[in-house]
Amino acid sequence: MSRSASVLFILLCLIPSFAQRPRETTANPFPPQAMDEMKKVQQAALASDYAYQITAHLTDNIGPRLAGSAQAQHAVEYIAAEMRKLGLEVRLEKCTVPHWVRGAESAELVEFPGQAPNTNQKIVLTALGGSVATPPQGVTAEVVVVGNFDELNSLGREKIQGKIVLFNVKFDKQLAAAGLAGPAYGQAVVYRERGAAAAARLGASASLVRSVGGADYRLPHTGVMSYAPNTPKIPAAAVTAEDADLIEHLAPQGRVRLHLTLTPQDLPPVESYNVIGDLKGSEHPEQVVIVSGHLDSWDLGTGAIDDAAGVGVAMQAAQVMKQLGLRPKRTLRVIAWMDEEGGLLGARTYFKQHAADIANHFAAVESDLGAGHAMGISFAGPPQLEPLLRPIAAVLQSSGAGTLRSAEEVGSDISPLTAAGVPSFSPIQDARFYFDYHHSAADTLDKIVPRELQENAAVMSVLGYALTNISVDLPRSAPR
Amino acid sequence: MSRSASVLFILLCLIPSFAQRPRETTANPFPPQAMDEMKKVQQAALASDYAYQITAHLTDNIGPRLAGSAQAQHAVEYIAAEMRKLGLEVRLEKCTVPHWVRGAESAELVEFPGQAPNTNQKIVLTALGGSVATPPQGVTAEVVVVGNFDELNSLGREKIQGKIVLFNVKFDKQLAAAGLAGPAYGQAVVYRERGAAAAARLGASASLVRSVGGADYRLPHTGVMSYAPNTPKIPAAAVTAEDADLIEHLAPQGRVRLHLTLTPQDLPPVESYNVIGDLKGSEHPEQVVIVSGHLDSWDLGTGAIDDAAGVGVAMQAAQVMKQLGLRPKRTLRVIAWMDEEGGLLGARTYFKQHAADIANHFAAVESDLGAGHAMGISFAGPPQLEPLLRPIAAVLQSSGAGTLRSAEEVGSDISPLTAAGVPSFSPIQDARFYFDYHHSAADTLDKIVPRELQENAAVMSVLGYALTNISVDLPRSAPR
Repeated sequence: MSRSASVLFILLCLIPSFAQRPRETTANPFPPQAMDEMKKVQQAALASDYAYQITAHLTDNIGPRLAGSAQAQHAVEYIAAEMRKLGLEVRLEKCTVPHWVRGAESAELVEFPGQAPNTNQKIVLTALGGSVATPPQGVTAEVVVVGNFDELNSLGREKIQGKIVLFNVKFDKQLAAAGLAGPAYGQAVVYRERGAAAAARLGASASLVRSVGGADYRLPHTGVMSYAPNTPKIPAAAVTAEDADLIEHLAPQGRVRLHLTLTPQDLPPVESYNVIGDLKGSEHPEQVVIVSGHLDSWDLGTGAIDDAAGVGVAMQAAQVMKQLGLRPKRTLRVIAWMDEEGGLLGARTYFKQHAADIANHFAAVESDLGAGHAMGISFAGPPQLEPLLRPIAAVLQSSGAGTLRSAEEVGSDISPLTAAGVPSFSPIQDARFYFDYHHSAADTLDKIVPRELQENAAVMSVLGYALTNISVDLPRSAPR
Repeated sequence: MSRSASVLFILLCLIPSFAQRPRETTANPFPPQAMDEMKKVQQAALASDYAYQITAHLTDNIGPRLAGSAQAQHAVEYIAAEMRKLGLEVRLEKCTVPHWVRGAESAELVEFPGQAPNTNQKIVLTALGGSVATPPQGVTAEVVVVGNFDELNSLGREKIQGKIVLFNVKFDKQLAAAGLAGPAYGQAVVYRERGAAAAARLGASASLVRSVGGADYRLPHTGVMSYAPNTPKIPAAAVTAEDADLIEHLAPQGRVRLHLTLTPQDLPPVESYNVIGDLKGSEHPEQVVIVSGHLDSWDLGTGAIDDAAGVGVAMQAAQVMKQLGLRPKRTLRVIAWMDEEGGLLGARTYFKQHAADIANHFAAVESDLGAGHAMGISFAGPPQLEPLLRPIAAVLQSSGAGTLRSAEEVGSDISPLTAAGVPSFSPIQDARFYFDYHHSAADTLDKIVPRELQENAAVMSVLGYALTNISVDLPRSAPR
């Protein structure tokens, strides 16, 4: 999950659950046999280790899968091969993705109050995705700490010119623990995304952001950032919470100067692929229900919760139908998206290439908020979707996933489809601890609880089965 | 806390609290005025930020304080100056300490099942204190995973020769969360300490240990290790829990080869100091009550919980007496020990230099298990100490620190004194989360909760006041 996710989850988390409202009566769009099959699909997914095996291979055997990397390419081939093993009609759809490569990254305070002679204080940080490099010998400058954009701007060019700006905005862990991880992320991530541009506008030599995440284990969280037109591109990095605290503690005591070296490279864009596997529908093969996750990940960890898990549970939807011999009426389209993190290049390309066929996109599902306990289904579309989902929720209730929740958006890769009016869905996950690991070196396989992944696989599989077989059309929103 | 601490805390945690037993009647060795003063001491410590300021300066303004480093020397000077500000009689007592310096450290899996062409998997690790270096170009060898010494030995020289051994012994987080952090540490730390020697005996080329600590944030925990006589010295490092899991997951699937580079240097020993400040006793100046913590720390973090906090609360004991104008009857001796982590060189030197004067060491206190909520007092010595401590516990009960607990040892720096029969004490801290941060980059100031540090300062201050003023002699154990 990255950029647009912030806005999405603010909205998603603030909208009360429909499950709490009195319910109108709607005819069940699933005949008894379909209801039975949904239960079988659920039970098969809950009993399967397929999603876990896919997730484990992507993370442990392949590793980090930053768009443009050799691992991302290998992951494309691996997923395509696994889809073929399932008997899907597989194709790789080209997309051109950025090829940013992390280099050396180090920093140390070279001047600070109370400093022992001939010593410095190490600062733990990581370059933000898309950042330019410092000169090879690094940048050395005084650090100015600000708490928000207004504070930065009130200091003005006179006090910022040549300095390194630190945006020290805390990730609100209490808000996240209260179940509002999305809003907690959203209110801090703007500084990661736009801090460098704002600082550069006032002549800063580099921009630091307090890591947008909940860890207090000296762990930097990376993520994408962007520059502004007609504004210098300055190096941008995320320091750990501890290092932000250190600088904020020292700065009022006297001058704090930092030496910063980052040597990332922005190489020429490369061709990569969305991996697409179709399980053709028996009655309406032209109508497509997408189930998806994104194949790329950040480079620090191995991208388990973001988002190998999403790919794993999407593939599980096809695997379960094959295992049970259930052929969908509409086409189930499994997609492993490329370059969600760097700028949705895969998703944007898909949308362009399939622009003439959007009317045949019956529904789209994406899982991209980890693999925590699955609590239900988020949906983006007209409120009339909700009664149609109730029978699905009734089936999922037995694994604790019976909640239905309306949201503006439900997944960044499918957001172009959502905006075009395609009914869109995602599992609702327990994301209280998602941002403790998000975009960090600690996003690794051990963060996946196998049982919880099965719960998510069950949501994805039941939803995939239900949407490909539902006996009525889904109401669609007007394109935005 | 380091080496001997493991045994100590196993013992400490398994002995039931005396507070739960029926109490015999003993005459209160504190007259009413002394009881009043103990309460004043407690309240003053609970209201003071002195210990926090000392802790903050050591960590944020000075930084990591590995014995032999420029920061350790600066910390000696800073603490001596602060002791003089308090009006103590200050002296630096020389001790010769090792001077091990961490170098570059990196590792990556260069061969593993499923590997994408031209890629490797990064392994996060840190050299153990005292480790020798690899050759500059590193060591490359297959990794053999073992779960204990027996498993290693059963593989024998044939299967270990030339390999890199990984001791994958999990730190038992559930045990730690249940309040038994010491035993959890003790059962894993033996592999950190003695793993390299055991692997080298069978011809291994390097030794890795799963980090001995509770973090699951890709955080390596360092700590001291030692080699065995007549056994080759091989490079030794701690991998993170995640990296240990990764290797354990991959190894059964096929050959896993690691490239490891460590470039630490073992420089010639240097002269350093224990920092000693006496607040001279009015009646028995020759009788000494030590209150102490250790000044050195590991180099990855800034040594806040291990053990700037211990130095801070020890100094608080003197600060409070000065603030309240209370002159002790015996001498209160504040000690900031050097090189607890590397091998207790400061403590051993002190013991040798004061060998003729042990009889005048009335009592010794050390705080070296962090700064979590203070729950009472651990004591090492004859059971007859317990009734004498009850009035002190009664005073401390109001801040939740009224528990008394017997232990074999209570602090590694004072363990030579304890073994010589000197009654020894420490605060009992809530250490459930201590080993999440212990010896890692995340041992930083933010891990100290100011109120909890005050609780510890209150225990140290009341204990320091009480032991310097108690109206009876303390029973002593026979020297071991």
